[in-house]
Amino acid sequence: MSAYQEMTKDELKAEYGRLMEEYKAYQARGLSLDMSRGKPGADQLDISMEMMTLLARPEDCKADDGFDCRNYGLMDGLPEARQFFAGLMGVKRENVIAGGNSSLNMMYDTIAAAYTHGLRGHMPWGRQDGLKFLCPVPGYDRHFTVTEHFGFAMIPVPMTPDGPDMEEVERLVKDDESVKGIWCVPKYSNPQGYTYSDETVRRFAALKPAAPDFLILWDNAYIVHDLENETDPLLNLMEECEKAGNENLAVMFTSTSKITFPGGGIAAMTASPENMKDFRRRLFCQSIGPDKLNQLRHVRFFRECGGVAELMKKHKAILCPKFEMVVSKLRSNLGELGIMSWNEPRGGYFVSVDTLPGCAARVVALCKEAGVVMTPAGATFPYGKDPQDRNIRIAPTLPPVPELETAMELFCLCVKLASAEQLLK
Amino acid sequence: MSAYQEMTKDELKAEYGRLMEEYKAYQARGLSLDMSRGKPGADQLDISMEMMTLLARPEDCKADDGFDCRNYGLMDGLPEARQFFAGLMGVKRENVIAGGNSSLNMMYDTIAAAYTHGLRGHMPWGRQDGLKFLCPVPGYDRHFTVTEHFGFAMIPVPMTPDGPDMEEVERLVKDDESVKGIWCVPKYSNPQGYTYSDETVRRFAALKPAAPDFLILWDNAYIVHDLENETDPLLNLMEECEKAGNENLAVMFTSTSKITFPGGGIAAMTASPENMKDFRRRLFCQSIGPDKLNQLRHVRFFRECGGVAELMKKHKAILCPKFEMVVSKLRSNLGELGIMSWNEPRGGYFVSVDTLPGCAARVVALCKEAGVVMTPAGATFPYGKDPQDRNIRIAPTLPPVPELETAMELFCLCVKLASAEQLLK
Repeated sequence: MSAYQEMTKDELKAEYGRLMEEYKAYQARGLSLDMSRGKPGADQLDISMEMMTLLARPEDCKADDGFDCRNYGLMDGLPEARQFFAGLMGVKRENVIAGGNSSLNMMYDTIAAAYTHGLRGHMPWGRQDGLKFLCPVPGYDRHFTVTEHFGFAMIPVPMTPDGPDMEEVERLVKDDESVKGIWCVPKYSNPQGYTYSDETVRRFAALKPAAPDFLILWDNAYIVHDLENETDPLLNLMEECEKAGNENLAVMFTSTSKITFPGGGIAAMTASPENMKDFRRRLFCQSIGPDKLNQLRHVRFFRECGGVAELMKKHKAILCPKFEMVVSKLRSNLGELGIMSWNEPRGGYFVSVDTLPGCAARVVALCKEAGVVMTPAGATFPYGKDPQDRNIRIAPTLPPVPELETAMELFCLCVKLASAEQLLK
Repeated sequence: MSAYQEMTKDELKAEYGRLMEEYKAYQARGLSLDMSRGKPGADQLDISMEMMTLLARPEDCKADDGFDCRNYGLMDGLPEARQFFAGLMGVKRENVIAGGNSSLNMMYDTIAAAYTHGLRGHMPWGRQDGLKFLCPVPGYDRHFTVTEHFGFAMIPVPMTPDGPDMEEVERLVKDDESVKGIWCVPKYSNPQGYTYSDETVRRFAALKPAAPDFLILWDNAYIVHDLENETDPLLNLMEECEKAGNENLAVMFTSTSKITFPGGGIAAMTASPENMKDFRRRLFCQSIGPDKLNQLRHVRFFRECGGVAELMKKHKAILCPKFEMVVSKLRSNLGELGIMSWNEPRGGYFVSVDTLPGCAARVVALCKEAGVVMTPAGATFPYGKDPQDRNIRIAPTLPPVPELETAMELFCLCVKLASAEQLLK
């Protein structure tokens, strides 16, 4: 089939008619499929079930140092949980806080604390005017929701296969004190699956923002979430920041949400000693300690199952066929038509696609009307508005492969329909 | 023995000399005992161990409606966990948020949200000047720490056996818009063990504060924590507020920290529909949901063990001898001396004592020097400063009974020593 742009109007109209017949047949099937969120499938959740009975007896609830994890205390987390995350993130244990199940909550709290109390003695963000935050696009909607909630003007920064456009980042932070930070998913980015290049990380570490209280929020959500045998290398931002004398710039987060259980994992954050002093002071007011039993349960499980790398191999074995299905359907259905581009991620949870300008919302609507829920078009941009209405995030992890195949067939059909409509306008 | 105040100086000096000999003997024993915090003892933690293996298989992780609790979702908590807390607090499920392990964190977040975003459209607290908060004294230090962290001027309100002095509360809130709320532990208060009377609760519900965004933070931490067969009756503040047309006044909290595990329990909050709308909006930005596996684990356990009331009987059986030991030691050692008053709590986690004015810090210091750690004197007052230096919070739950006996003997001795020193000044 030739590219849609090369067809005559009449050819395209005929094609549209054929597609619409096909679409109506899908509608008649009464599908109900969900590709909207990056949820692990049930088979992935089964991988970690052994964890659930590890703390059976009172003596199982004791930490390595004898501390009874069932009781109050250890406000910054269980030492061995902090050690685990320190190893994962490549930082020192004393700079790690191990928390509850949500790293997003830790990011929220970090921004809230800077907003109410300021960072390292600087004026609280809440008392400064015209706050701005940099948002690489496409990006993660829940990040953008946090900064929107706190009233930041969100400035989109284009993503590239090497990470955010660093020239743009450097330009935006250079003279404007009201630019307070940037959201980053540095490895297998959400949604494109890009891993920041060494140069990008080094330029982040060397950043000289006008704002003395600028933060790089480094959400390493997919830190071990490979789809290939070789992991994408990612430089350690904290180390690079230290080398550049810039260690207060970075706050790094990760969690086991997509290693063990999204609904019952553990999360962690790390920052410079100076920033940690602020964060700890807040933490002491906020709680008498996280759920240490779940931290202990996780650490014990990781020891018994042979480590996180072993677990991630099992996740990979389940996820690879799903990602392959998505990419192969895109290729076979849309490869020659010139109406869609996509990336083929080497890790993470998403495939990001771009339609012709002005088609994304229509594609998502068409899918929905035939029973397939996609992430809302625009969700990958601040305020939910994609200025070109092009980007769609495909989340292939939750549905079983046969359902995914059906959903992708329908999706590709909807892309063709919406594109033909657009070209016929 | 006659009361210390009736002794001559010489009699008292002789007494002091005898006491000091006794004290030195204790010091020589090298004790190391902790009565500083309201931690359950290990035998109490053993009560709930069956919970730890209840979610063994994937199908065990499904909620009543089939929802897989291992995955993302249900940001305001598992329906059956919310139902459990609704029953416990006597409110509607739809107004309950079930969260992580820390109700203190929920209180912190409530204040933080009012501070950054304001309540129900009112100006954010962070943009108002001269914020004040009412603190019944003696009270819970961790409450005071939260309001101190947010820069509130804390105004002490005297406690009575019926709850806070309501005349004082009514007077303080009436004309001053900067008074934004009050901390309450309405049942078996921390540290005195007082339960608010019906009249107190009704007067709270009928409060007409000048501040339209005033909050009663109702921390029902000891909601089922009886030491007697008959529980202290406590009116339902939310119901009373509704009757008084004042439902936006109250935010109520509770947790299972001292029902199951302080280090791995579940917590909840409830408020009016209008307040809940604000809190939910924040919650949606803050997290993708609490640890639902731990919520499910708890709900299942409560069903299987015959309910919370059954569990609390077991706690009571362990705690009663400890509280009896404290009170009997106070009685037998100090009953006739006129140098200490105390209350005999019918529930909760503490015994509150008052020394002669100016003696509390000295008593705690003497205890410490002989190896017994008490809650720091002053901790039950805002800023850690007891103006009369009288109140000490005894936390008898953690040590086993024989250790407690020794610690109480020493404590009484230190009270005598400090009192004699004071009277000899």
